Amino acid sequence: MTISQPLSFQHVILKLHDFWASHGCLLWQPYNVQVGAGTMNPATALRVLGPEPWNVAYVEPSIRPDDGRYGDNPNRMQQFLQYQVILKPDPGNPQEIYLDSLAAIGIDRAQHDIRFVEDNWESPALGAWGLGWEVWLDGLEITQFTYFQQAGGFALDPVSVEITYGLERIVMFLQGVRSVWDIDYDGQRTYGDVFLRSEIEYNIYNYELADVERLTQMYALYEAEAKAALAHEPPLVIAAHDYVLKCSHTFNLLDARGAIGVTERAGYFARMRDLARQVAAAYLEQRQQMEYPWLKEKVDSGQWSVVSKPANPPAIQLTSQSVSFVLEIGVEELPAGDLSSALEQLKAAFPAFLREHKLEASEVHHPIGTPRRLGLIATIAARQPDEDIEVKGPPLKAAYDAVGKPTKAAEGFAKGQGVSVSHLAPFSGDERYVGVKKKIVGRPALTVLSENLPSLIASLKFGKAMRWNASGVAFSRPIRWFVALLGDQVIPFEYAGVQSGRTTRGTRAAGSPEITTASAGEYRDALKRANILADPDTRRSAIVEQISAAAAKAGGSIPDDPNLLEEVTHLVEQPTALLGTFEDRYLALPKDVLITVMKKQQRYFPVTTQQTSQLTNHFIAIRNGNSDHLDIVTHGNEDVLRARYADAEYFFKRDTQKKLEDYLPRLGTLTFQVKLGSMLDRVKRIEALTPKMAALLNVSDDELTIAARAAHLCKADLVTQMVIEFTSLQGIMGREYAKRSGESSAVADAIFEHYLPRYAGDQLPQSKAGTVIGLADRLDSLAGLFAIGLAPTGSADPWALRRAALGIVLVLVDQHLSFRLRDELRLAAAHQPVKVEDKTIDDVIAFIAGRLRVMLLDRGLRYDAVDAVLVVRADDPYRAASEATVLAKWLQEPDWSDVLSNYARCVRITRDLKERLPLDTRADAEPATATLREAYDRAAAKVNAQPDVNTLLTELRGLKDTVFAFFEKVLVMAEDESIRKARLGLVQHIAALSEGIVDLSKVEGF
Amino acid sequence: MTISQPLSFQHVILKLHDFWASHGCLLWQPYNVQVGAGTMNPATALRVLGPEPWNVAYVEPSIRPDDGRYGDNPNRMQQFLQYQVILKPDPGNPQEIYLDSLAAIGIDRAQHDIRFVEDNWESPALGAWGLGWEVWLDGLEITQFTYFQQAGGFALDPVSVEITYGLERIVMFLQGVRSVWDIDYDGQRTYGDVFLRSEIEYNIYNYELADVERLTQMYALYEAEAKAALAHEPPLVIAAHDYVLKCSHTFNLLDARGAIGVTERAGYFARMRDLARQVAAAYLEQRQQMEYPWLKEKVDSGQWSVVSKPANPPAIQLTSQSVSFVLEIGVEELPAGDLSSALEQLKAAFPAFLREHKLEASEVHHPIGTPRRLGLIATIAARQPDEDIEVKGPPLKAAYDAVGKPTKAAEGFAKGQGVSVSHLAPFSGDERYVGVKKKIVGRPALTVLSENLPSLIASLKFGKAMRWNASGVAFSRPIRWFVALLGDQVIPFEYAGVQSGRTTRGTRAAGSPEITTASAGEYRDALKRANILADPDTRRSAIVEQISAAAAKAGGSIPDDPNLLEEVTHLVEQPTALLGTFEDRYLALPKDVLITVMKKQQRYFPVTTQQTSQLTNHFIAIRNGNSDHLDIVTHGNEDVLRARYADAEYFFKRDTQKKLEDYLPRLGTLTFQVKLGSMLDRVKRIEALTPKMAALLNVSDDELTIAARAAHLCKADLVTQMVIEFTSLQGIMGREYAKRSGESSAVADAIFEHYLPRYAGDQLPQSKAGTVIGLADRLDSLAGLFAIGLAPTGSADPWALRRAALGIVLVLVDQHLSFRLRDELRLAAAHQPVKVEDKTIDDVIAFIAGRLRVMLLDRGLRYDAVDAVLVVRADDPYRAASEATVLAKWLQEPDWSDVLSNYARCVRITRDLKERLPLDTRADAEPATATLREAYDRAAAKVNAQPDVNTLLTELRGLKDTVFAFFEKVLVMAEDESIRKARLGLVQHIAALSEGIVDLSKVEGF
Repeated sequence: MTISQPLSFQHVILKLHDFWASHGCLLWQPYNVQVGAGTMNPATALRVLGPEPWNVAYVEPSIRPDDGRYGDNPNRMQQFLQYQVILKPDPGNPQEIYLDSLAAIGIDRAQHDIRFVEDNWESPALGAWGLGWEVWLDGLEITQFTYFQQAGGFALDPVSVEITYGLERIVMFLQGVRSVWDIDYDGQRTYGDVFLRSEIEYNIYNYELADVERLTQMYALYEAEAKAALAHEPPLVIAAHDYVLKCSHTFNLLDARGAIGVTERAGYFARMRDLARQVAAAYLEQRQQMEYPWLKEKVDSGQWSVVSKPANPPAIQLTSQSVSFVLEIGVEELPAGDLSSALEQLKAAFPAFLREHKLEASEVHHPIGTPRRLGLIATIAARQPDEDIEVKGPPLKAAYDAVGKPTKAAEGFAKGQGVSVSHLAPFSGDERYVGVKKKIVGRPALTVLSENLPSLIASLKFGKAMRWNASGVAFSRPIRWFVALLGDQVIPFEYAGVQSGRTTRGTRAAGSPEITTASAGEYRDALKRANILADPDTRRSAIVEQISAAAAKAGGSIPDDPNLLEEVTHLVEQPTALLGTFEDRYLALPKDVLITVMKKQQRYFPVTTQQTSQLTNHFIAIRNGNSDHLDIVTHGNEDVLRARYADAEYFFKRDTQKKLEDYLPRLGTLTFQVKLGSMLDRVKRIEALTPKMAALLNVSDDELTIAARAAHLCKADLVTQMVIEFTSLQGIMGREYAKRSGESSAVADAIFEHYLPRYAGDQLPQSKAGTVIGLADRLDSLAGLFAIGLAPTGSADPWALRRAALGIVLVLVDQHLSFRLRDELRLAAAHQPVKVEDKTIDDVIAFIAGRLRVMLLDRGLRYDAVDAVLVVRADDPYRAASEATVLAKWLQEPDWSDVLSNYARCVRITRDLKERLPLDTRADAEPATATLREAYDRAAAKVNAQPDVNTLLTELRGLKDTVFAFFEKVLVMAEDESIRKARLGLVQHIAALSEGIVDLSKVEGF
Repeated sequence: MTISQPLSFQHVILKLHDFWASHGCLLWQPYNVQVGAGTMNPATALRVLGPEPWNVAYVEPSIRPDDGRYGDNPNRMQQFLQYQVILKPDPGNPQEIYLDSLAAIGIDRAQHDIRFVEDNWESPALGAWGLGWEVWLDGLEITQFTYFQQAGGFALDPVSVEITYGLERIVMFLQGVRSVWDIDYDGQRTYGDVFLRSEIEYNIYNYELADVERLTQMYALYEAEAKAALAHEPPLVIAAHDYVLKCSHTFNLLDARGAIGVTERAGYFARMRDLARQVAAAYLEQRQQMEYPWLKEKVDSGQWSVVSKPANPPAIQLTSQSVSFVLEIGVEELPAGDLSSALEQLKAAFPAFLREHKLEASEVHHPIGTPRRLGLIATIAARQPDEDIEVKGPPLKAAYDAVGKPTKAAEGFAKGQGVSVSHLAPFSGDERYVGVKKKIVGRPALTVLSENLPSLIASLKFGKAMRWNASGVAFSRPIRWFVALLGDQVIPFEYAGVQSGRTTRGTRAAGSPEITTASAGEYRDALKRANILADPDTRRSAIVEQISAAAAKAGGSIPDDPNLLEEVTHLVEQPTALLGTFEDRYLALPKDVLITVMKKQQRYFPVTTQQTSQLTNHFIAIRNGNSDHLDIVTHGNEDVLRARYADAEYFFKRDTQKKLEDYLPRLGTLTFQVKLGSMLDRVKRIEALTPKMAALLNVSDDELTIAARAAHLCKADLVTQMVIEFTSLQGIMGREYAKRSGESSAVADAIFEHYLPRYAGDQLPQSKAGTVIGLADRLDSLAGLFAIGLAPTGSADPWALRRAALGIVLVLVDQHLSFRLRDELRLAAAHQPVKVEDKTIDDVIAFIAGRLRVMLLDRGLRYDAVDAVLVVRADDPYRAASEATVLAKWLQEPDWSDVLSNYARCVRITRDLKERLPLDTRADAEPATATLREAYDRAAAKVNAQPDVNTLLTELRGLKDTVFAFFEKVLVMAEDESIRKARLGLVQHIAALSEGIVDLSKVEGF
């Protein structure tokens, strides 16, 4: 701490007020309507819209009913105070200003690990989203920092920077207290003194008492008032906005009461979003009509540009053929995924770029990158090579007149090429034309790069990109600087409003000092001196080494987790591992919970014992910075994990107060889909399907007993608090809670397994019970949702039906379960509360087949093999898969094309026949016919006996020579009708051998 | 200004935060539910309850839909920002701390007129009230300062000081801007930039768009949720409170929409108050169960006391028989009415006090008083006179035994009296007892006063009194010091936690400096030196002189208004008149409006032209302070009046956009009383009654035409904005708007006059039309409201029915209109939507008679004369009044007792006769009987011809000697029955002469 006495809670607010007022912010008041976040205050929600500048700061008491813990959690509660700042437009260095504001309240960045961790914010209710970060202070999330991209459904221009401080967490940290309730509020009273009792009462109200029926009525009234205000001419923006907020709060209460099902949720969101959009539109219209009174100095749109014309590059004195090059794109913290992707893209794009621009030379390093920089380092050609070229001109006839004198056309062409007419000669490629030969002198690399580096940068694409300034450029996160050097010269360009230069920045912990690099060659060293491990591989290795050493110190080891390692590697510039500890008692929580919290929420490495691989009460975090004051940082991270575990423990304690079965009634209040009833209705359908499905899958009576019980309980964990908080633990908690409720482990495992596999490559259910329930679950979803028209369209798949279909396919195929989908779907359909047409069942089968096709292609099967089988076998995925595999092997046989072509000939010649001819060769005296007839009869008997691809193709192979001979010797289309029909009938029967087995016409070469 | 650059709006808030935080206040946030005032924030509404200390400060955006002016008014709008401070308990000098806070934001009390003007705050919805002031800054109300007495229906102990700053007004003042919209908010934007558009939109929503049906539903839902939260065990205090606030805001919106009738209003208030009471009770219970965690140092209830035992007074060396005395009760600003009353009380009580305590001497001045002090100045006896007394002991027989030796009883008595047995002697009053003679030595005045001054102070009573500290003493406003001197010695006592002393305080403008007085004799001079005109008469004269001079300067004069003069006199200690001016254009507003604003709202004296008594655009205000910087103060007062007139102009403009008649439909939405229908229903009843009433009062056809039209319009102004704002202008605006709507002036006047007289002494209606409508109006109210059981009870008279009855009485009596109430009431009853029983009509007549009786007594008639007449004439108030007047004169006649006693003898002797005897004296031969019979026959003929008091009494006077002689000569109760019946019959007929005229048995001496 740089100041001796920590500030009181209210003093921190006053300091922030002073800080932001002195940075040009208008100080605003909390809103007088209950909101979930400061974002909803019109000072943000409306003012970020439109072109006018706006800088504002205010406190916002924010209500999240779902976060209530009856005062039992050290930092989680249904109401907390945000400190909200909006900077519009982006001032260019908002992160630095923000870090200064932390210093103003006593947080020294040199003593802590302050981290910008990817966070993509979205408010479905407000039709708003933005990209940015959570700011972590020694692992504790203290701020949300967002570049607002859209609000009320409108793209924002300019973009606003939104900074939302979690005041309680910051003050807890400053005051060194472990519970929010112990915060010194004003020097006399604690935060608990003034808020705890209300917190508990609100919890009771929100979770237990708020009347669902009345809240639903309130929502409808608010919505109607909002609509009325919008329908007024002119629209009453603020009155409408207030009611949208009231809708939102009421929705949150309904949600906390568990009264919102999945579809209602979507419906509510759609309604709120629609209102928010109308409010935003009305506000935009209003400000336009007011002629943007705050836009005193109109933003000159010419002031910013995506790419400016490069200044004339300085004259270059090249002393060598090649020269060292560096490009560093300095950015605000990139998400780990975006950093991975950008490195991949650059690795591919940069060599191509050099090739395209003819600047290839000896050495191209792999791109380097940290959250704050993407770098290209290479030795390249100092200039492009010279080239000889020939340009084609007008036809000879047109170029010279009768007396051989050049025409105007010839003169024009020569002039255009910068040569005299006398240089024209017949074009070497086509002598009917004139042409001209020219030498293109290679341009200096500096010029070429100056012109083209912007396009290279612009070519980087990200899953989600953002805008931040008037240049309109979209990137993963804002670009703040470029280092672009060729030798010792700056490659001049401007992109996204940023001028290239020779200055990079040090680490955040060091205060991001400016570091000037004299030449490209010095760049690496400059980073090294700044303690930045810019090369991802080096960084990854350093982390592995450090965490292993730290784990060893605790006598443990780190289980492999490449995904986590990759992510952590991409979160830091200067990794320093620290070993933290948590209270033993938390080890009593389910392991999956502990690990989920560590990895998903905190990006910590769990430590297990070396021998038994048991989880220990240690964890390892990677600090972004050096090892100074590591004890403070460790302590902070431990506090954070403790609070997280307290939260989990709270859930666990509450959840285990009831048996798993006792959660079932609550499922009745959780709507699955309005037309398809509640989750409880769904469970009942699954229960009803389970024995029928079991019968088809040869499940024993004992297993059926297990399956029946597990089906009854399979969804109960959805309404437990742990699963509401950590959705990824569904099934896992079900298993855990089932065991604790006295269920057999077979039942518990079946509950867990019915979700398997969750994705291609995940484990499969081990038990029949899990398999059966999983299939019943998925078939029920598909039948019901398709029946009411909710099949996925385009990329939208809100019900995850693609995953459900894939699950069916994986279970059936990989467990070798042959299964008539149509029959099963009819059973599932019979239990739906809506009518399911046959056409719907066809659609579902086709949909599942689509997933199967993708899966088989992913597994390397030839598409033609897959398609040929699926046409006839879609109803039985396992059978389809195995047949496709067999067919694919046949396609590799050396005589395949021979087999195919003889068979194809049979098909083609009979394809247009409308009628099905009898198999009767008596009218034909030709011996070849009789021979073929005999061969056919033998083959048909075999195929009928075992109608599969292998038998079919074996027989077709056997027939091929006979068929060939038949076509050689006889004219099928004989003039005599009876003879013709005898021959055609035979051929038609051969063609029909594949019916119901495979459609060979789909195979390549047919 | 003491600081050069005025602060921005947000800077003022920060300064106040700093100021109050440094004074121990917790800084709180505005509430996230829409409220009408900071008081409703739980930081006030709940925290003021119970014994725990609590000091808090916060901003509160406060919403008053009715105050919206579509942004057209310079400082009136539906939302404004309060700065709210709660100090609990009273720190002892909250006014001084408050004045320091003004200094902190740049308001120097020496340069301004800062005034504490009585304001009694009440929130019917919250069941809360308190006493205190509006603080005026150069005439502008900038703060409400209240000692909270009750909240949620619970008496507060300790009392909280509530300080509510009107931030906009203060900042307008500081920045010298004339409109709130021009306030510099943050150095860049104005208040209008950020709020104006919303203000206008909210106005449209509140006044025009908010859906009454939906709001009514919301109210019901909120109420139900509040009840549910309260019904929970334990009650969810804060959740319930939130919903009470939502009820309140919704009610305000309904009210702004004009959807709340008079009764609904009362009903809503009762419901909200009931909820607020339950919330308060639950909060109190909760804190008690929590064992008052903030009560770390328990308040020692012995620390405070109403009256402490006086310290032993110092030994006194009296050098003279009499000594000068002064008592000053130093108070926070008393309301003008309380000051008047206290002065009256002291004027009567102090001489009686001296008499009782035997300290009378030569000189007692009238009490002096200003808003901040009540003073008694006198020369009194330095000590009580000595007294000889004799005390009665036991009976002689019990005092001495047979041998004359004193018994134990005698010894005990002697010991009790502090004498030896030998001093006993027979008691001089009754020698059957022993007694003892003693000399009581008079006690020094200092001792007597020290013991008894507290009771003198405690004897002062006020219409509304308040508590402020733990002593529990109630007074008009807090007592902060006592000067109590006898000669040069302090008379020691403590009252209300304040110790007496010799230190008074100078004026507020001078910073209330402490002024020590060496002796009682110097007190007057000390005040004079401090420029305090402590004597009310002197002050009044000074004001009269100053305002006359000021008016003369403007070439005008001040119309007499003793009430205003009295009030203004009691608002200042150091009066300085200032002459202000307002824009000519406002003179276009109705004169009554202009004057009402000046007098009622601002306590300004209007200035009229000397010749024509036309209102000028000048006004005179009395500053409390000297003439330094009078220009600043004048300027401030002018600004205030301008804003008020802008407001009135706004109303007027809006009101006159429609014709008066067009307001009638709106009356249909204004409920008069649920069972009695809307105001429009009432108007229809008045219209129906008018011609019938007119017929009984001999109204001409022309006049009836006028009356009919006026009756149609008489209540239309109730829904105009001007009357909603200034209720006292009802009828006045009706007249004004009628004229502007093209009605004849007769109709307009009748509308105005139907309210007359408003109070005893007010003018009467000049026109028959006004008279008729006024009677119809009042009779309709009385008949209807009595019929549904809403007759006034106790002191409660929410429908002002006493005033209605008095109005009837005054109109009839003073306009000499004889009128059978019963007939009229039957007409009125016939139009009611409810059944009106005969009994109800009797009750109404009795009720009106009650008012008549009070009126007649007020006019000086003897009660017995009034009662004697009212018994028989209550049905006709005018007749009753004139008869009572006649009777009262008779009671003064010298032979009255003679007249009465002879008549009374007739009454008394026949009073118990059950039967009515025939008048038949033939059986009686006694000549005296015949003589009396003749005399009776003559008298009876006269009385029957003119059955009034005067005729009756003239005849009784004529009969008296004959009656006397009759009783002398004959024995009425003769043994012969026929003779007896003849005599009794005659006497009974004489007694019956008064029947239907007057009941003389009610007269004194009967």
